[in-house]
Amino acid sequence: MGRILLCFLVYVVVISANAADIRHLNIWPMPKSVSYGHGSLYLGSDFELKTEGTKFVDSSGILKDAFLRTIDVVKGNHVIESNSSKFDSSFVLKGIHVVVFSPSDELQHGVDESYELHIPARGNPLYAHIEAKTVYGALHALQTFSQVCYFNFTSRGIVVHQVPWTIVDQPRFSYRGLLIDTSRHYQPLPIIKKVIDSMTYAKLNVLHWHIVDSQSFPLEIPSYPNLWDGAYSVSERYTFADAAEIVSYAKKRGINVLAEIDVPGHAQSWGVGYPSLWPSIDCKEPLDVSKESTFKLIDGILSDFSKIFKYKFVHLGGDEVNTSCWQSTPHVHKWLQKNKMNGSEAYQYFVLRAQKIALSHGYEIINWEETFNNFGSKLSRKTVVHNWLGGGVAQRVVEAGLRCIVSNQDKWYLDHLDAIWQGFYTNEPLTNITDPRQQSLVLGGEVCMWGEHIDGSDIEQTIWPRAAAAAERLWTSYDSLAKDPEQVRSRLSHFRCLLNQRGVAAAPLDGLGRSAPEDPGSCYLQ
Amino acid sequence: MGRILLCFLVYVVVISANAADIRHLNIWPMPKSVSYGHGSLYLGSDFELKTEGTKFVDSSGILKDAFLRTIDVVKGNHVIESNSSKFDSSFVLKGIHVVVFSPSDELQHGVDESYELHIPARGNPLYAHIEAKTVYGALHALQTFSQVCYFNFTSRGIVVHQVPWTIVDQPRFSYRGLLIDTSRHYQPLPIIKKVIDSMTYAKLNVLHWHIVDSQSFPLEIPSYPNLWDGAYSVSERYTFADAAEIVSYAKKRGINVLAEIDVPGHAQSWGVGYPSLWPSIDCKEPLDVSKESTFKLIDGILSDFSKIFKYKFVHLGGDEVNTSCWQSTPHVHKWLQKNKMNGSEAYQYFVLRAQKIALSHGYEIINWEETFNNFGSKLSRKTVVHNWLGGGVAQRVVEAGLRCIVSNQDKWYLDHLDAIWQGFYTNEPLTNITDPRQQSLVLGGEVCMWGEHIDGSDIEQTIWPRAAAAAERLWTSYDSLAKDPEQVRSRLSHFRCLLNQRGVAAAPLDGLGRSAPEDPGSCYLQ
Repeated sequence: MGRILLCFLVYVVVISANAADIRHLNIWPMPKSVSYGHGSLYLGSDFELKTEGTKFVDSSGILKDAFLRTIDVVKGNHVIESNSSKFDSSFVLKGIHVVVFSPSDELQHGVDESYELHIPARGNPLYAHIEAKTVYGALHALQTFSQVCYFNFTSRGIVVHQVPWTIVDQPRFSYRGLLIDTSRHYQPLPIIKKVIDSMTYAKLNVLHWHIVDSQSFPLEIPSYPNLWDGAYSVSERYTFADAAEIVSYAKKRGINVLAEIDVPGHAQSWGVGYPSLWPSIDCKEPLDVSKESTFKLIDGILSDFSKIFKYKFVHLGGDEVNTSCWQSTPHVHKWLQKNKMNGSEAYQYFVLRAQKIALSHGYEIINWEETFNNFGSKLSRKTVVHNWLGGGVAQRVVEAGLRCIVSNQDKWYLDHLDAIWQGFYTNEPLTNITDPRQQSLVLGGEVCMWGEHIDGSDIEQTIWPRAAAAAERLWTSYDSLAKDPEQVRSRLSHFRCLLNQRGVAAAPLDGLGRSAPEDPGSCYLQ
Repeated sequence: MGRILLCFLVYVVVISANAADIRHLNIWPMPKSVSYGHGSLYLGSDFELKTEGTKFVDSSGILKDAFLRTIDVVKGNHVIESNSSKFDSSFVLKGIHVVVFSPSDELQHGVDESYELHIPARGNPLYAHIEAKTVYGALHALQTFSQVCYFNFTSRGIVVHQVPWTIVDQPRFSYRGLLIDTSRHYQPLPIIKKVIDSMTYAKLNVLHWHIVDSQSFPLEIPSYPNLWDGAYSVSERYTFADAAEIVSYAKKRGINVLAEIDVPGHAQSWGVGYPSLWPSIDCKEPLDVSKESTFKLIDGILSDFSKIFKYKFVHLGGDEVNTSCWQSTPHVHKWLQKNKMNGSEAYQYFVLRAQKIALSHGYEIINWEETFNNFGSKLSRKTVVHNWLGGGVAQRVVEAGLRCIVSNQDKWYLDHLDAIWQGFYTNEPLTNITDPRQQSLVLGGEVCMWGEHIDGSDIEQTIWPRAAAAAERLWTSYDSLAKDPEQVRSRLSHFRCLLNQRGVAAAPLDGLGRSAPEDPGSCYLQ
């Protein structure tokens, strides 16, 4: 016992000598409400998950696996040499007691993600407590828990800092997305899974999968098996089972997958397998609006989608549609004349017909903002308008009574390397929207990792840490957000170093985009 | 049976339609001798490791774990849907039969890394066969095996291409190194482990760990517990157990860890914990040559090193020593006068004394080439000279009867972003060395990932694929190396895409260093 007390004293000294690292709240994103103390606990050697009293059966191991992942990341950075049985047991955290009130593991838009995390300072036996309406709230609680655990170089074990903790938390927005683009460059499954893992650390909850575009069509569509002839090569393809695996992997981590087909523009690769989708050999997009077979094929895709992409939304694109080559293709021109449409009317016709197909498969729809800008009043009321061109759009969308997702490119496009983290942090989705009813129509926002210059070599450091800055904007209560982003610099820097410690290639805060560190130095100062 | 035949026919058609991807030998680095056919086999669903007849007991699971990792990387890229029990069993590879002749798992310099891999075209039961003198040869064989396995989009399982295979392989050089630098930027343990994993894919076998330098001292030295006060921060440190874990993790993968302390220059950070190592507050390096305590401390470090760094070599640095501030520090100046030394003589004195200390702990020594260039004839005959300044050094070193490792910075420094993969490939360690006895003194070479601008965010893509180009130079028989690197471009490109598929952020071949992909396109063409 004498030896143990000595050990603890030394430990306290170490803390005070290095207070800069831990004196502050280093949780990212900042929870809604936090209180904490100045005590410390050891993490028990046989740290366990206890679930007495929970209503959640966990038949697919969502909670259990998340718990094991939490322990892995907490312990993964150093060799654990301590044996907690040698410590006074009232200072040893034996495990986490998780109580989930809902038996369901359904992960739908708007699922309750709130949680409470309480870590007492003393007790015997001593457990952390998590309460959550759904398992997905409990998953967020485990993430928060992992961020108050530190390797202690004196005890050579994990120590929970700043106990007692009481954290009451819930997200501000229900949609906190990250777009990846597997058409401009194929991303192998292990890379996508790593991106999904890293999203959980920042409590993002939607992976917007921009699957196909003009350049390549990597996904198998069972109803139209030639579509993936539009892949870059035989190996740069996803089977339908691969896509289902991505959905399942994401769901186990509390992340919905939003699948996109971007019609009628951004679809040239479709015609590699089905050339009749091309109006002509000189006009390979937009897709041929004049043929019934075009819409039958979209119906086939969305029918297949509905079997694996269970999120309530599907993204139908609809941006950057240049209809001029419809006009110059004789059979399409003839069809336009017959149906008394000009190019922009035909664009509208296409988008609305695709919307109807999506609705018939039970989906609500997300469309890029050009559809709203051009014929907003015609869109299905089940449309969510996805802003990208600039600011001010959300305001007009919600005034029109539609829902909106914010991704204005000047602030939230990750491929814009000159968009710096401070801009990601301060981009407010509710700018100039004061009516609470209208505010509720802003579902949230999304950062976009377009793939023209992104492959497996640079996706992580282009996403992180900037996506984390947006993640706090989308998670944290407005009043808890910093007005000046420099106030959160050291906490964000701490989070980016944490990502590195978890094997995620998050870039320094300084410099543009994914800049290399400018000089030798501490991770925490770059 | 009819159904299975049909399936196989379809599969053959798919191969022929996409022959570009697989017609050629896509093994990296190229083995010494290869013969192959045009058949294909399915990988069995319960693919197993068989070790009958082996002399190797595998008490620490080296072979078993390597086998499991092999299966993981082979299967990790797509969901496996096939069930091999539905195929004609004479086309199903049931497992690998590995016979290792040596019972020892000792991993020392010059350990036999040769292997033979035979994969027959038919048989019942059908096994691949590996024979190797040591388990480390068997590990290389598994790597080679993993590179002839492909996911087949028709059968939805793994297919072994181009059977029958007979591969007889061994490395050309016994030292095939990669340097990492954890002083300029701290690299968390999970990042170092990922680097080690990726090294195995290219059959590199030495991790040269440039642990400390002027900027920071991240490693715990039990004999001198204040040394890591020179770390950038409390968390940017490795415990002694962490270092042992790195050695153990690497050894299980057939990789030796070469530890370096770079004395007497490049050592300013040592004095943070022990200021008496600094000649004065205005002269913080080179280390104080005039004090016995300096050498006592080096003895303490190397004594500690010898407990965990079991490789026969230790690296003592010795480069870029500017002795001018020794002269201008009164007590050192006085000591020089008393001992009748000028600065360069004192530099020699320091290096030779450090060598003696290393020898006393059972190590042979590696020193950077300045030591040879300045007083080569005085160096211990157990010295290996580490070339870095330019070409032509190896020739002079081996003429002097010493051993050499080649890392000329113009070709093999990975931090030189303008050093392109073609230069990495064509850099020949034996340039102008024709005497076989002298050739045998060139142990091999090493690519160097200096850390001034490298942290967890950019290490992987700065190392790969350029390190792989050097790895083939170091592994493959001279006669099998391409005279024109463009002849291996597509095979190297295939290897870099394979790295991406395994979650390694290897950069495109095009562009400088770790350039982002310039345009949308296939991984295989960038």
